[in-house]
Amino acid sequence: MSEYPASFERLIHELGKLPGVGPRSAVRMAFHLLKRSPEDVRVFSSALLDARSRCRPCRECFNLTEQDICSICSSGRRDPSMILVVEDASDVAAFERTHEYRGLYHVLGGTLSPLEGRGPQELNLDALLLRAGKMPSLKEVIVATDPTVEGDSTGFYIQQLLQGTPVKVTRLGRGLPSGADVEYADETTLLRALEGRREL
Amino acid sequence: MSEYPASFERLIHELGKLPGVGPRSAVRMAFHLLKRSPEDVRVFSSALLDARSRCRPCRECFNLTEQDICSICSSGRRDPSMILVVEDASDVAAFERTHEYRGLYHVLGGTLSPLEGRGPQELNLDALLLRAGKMPSLKEVIVATDPTVEGDSTGFYIQQLLQGTPVKVTRLGRGLPSGADVEYADETTLLRALEGRREL
Repeated sequence: MSEYPASFERLIHELGKLPGVGPRSAVRMAFHLLKRSPEDVRVFSSALLDARSRCRPCRECFNLTEQDICSICSSGRRDPSMILVVEDASDVAAFERTHEYRGLYHVLGGTLSPLEGRGPQELNLDALLLRAGKMPSLKEVIVATDPTVEGDSTGFYIQQLLQGTPVKVTRLGRGLPSGADVEYADETTLLRALEGRREL
Repeated sequence: MSEYPASFERLIHELGKLPGVGPRSAVRMAFHLLKRSPEDVRVFSSALLDARSRCRPCRECFNLTEQDICSICSSGRRDPSMILVVEDASDVAAFERTHEYRGLYHVLGGTLSPLEGRGPQELNLDALLLRAGKMPSLKEVIVATDPTVEGDSTGFYIQQLLQGTPVKVTRLGRGLPSGADVEYADETTLLRALEGRREL
């Protein structure tokens, strides 16, 4: 016989799949949810389904969007001479919070990692090359992968990829402490890194 | 303009209401959920609704159940001479994991706390008195509230409540937790351990 009713055990099990949630936190969260109003829980439940069904990658830059083309790509007020290449959509959000960068983005979906079996085909790299070829306005691709071994080698790969095109490839300045996570860097650090970018 | 699509922001907002989940964890969880299959997310979403609609307090002891009466109260194999009084249903689960206690339970729903406006009416105390009155088999009520000021005063309240009935009111033993280090135990714990010493 299990400790809790079946439906409660199932909820604990599902909550325990969330990143950073151990068995005890899952139980605490489940009890917390039972104390909320049924309407509140219904709203949470719908939010899950809605986000999962509505959000998709932008067809141009692979940023998160509910449309075919994300609000940044379709804005018309962004500088089409620059593409900032990031690992994940959460990195786009981090740069948007600086309110300074006005160019476009390209979300790779990770970094190259031979150890974890992620080669160029697993990332949106072909799409980046295609996109660059279709954008006569494009002057610069700024690599903004995490300052880690994998992030750096992904940057070098992009530099090779765009060699022979008129596009200049730069990377973020080392205002970022090595080993840090772009997503969690503060705005000032991100701005310094943008200003201090160097040609690859 | 917000950083993420509306449905994604709503999901972050809902996840952020869970206990122990800060804004950054909420974003991380939301991205994690987008990477899961739609079916997986549907299962999570249903688990929320199911648990909230099926689970309720046992009519006898206020433990969590999907029936009117919980599996412990309706078992017939539990000792009806003892009721262990706990703060929450999660405490019932903790005692059940010992596989030793064979009596019944009573879930208070918290402790008395004048500071937080929780008086006797907010807890399942009247129900405990009524229940004790209807159980000629009952010999002992064991108070198992947390060993805190509020837990202790709730224990004293229960002792007063049952005064004049033939029921004996006891509380959990105090002392060193199993595996503890005497050197690092706090003064109160050491004093309680001295008071509660037993002949070897």
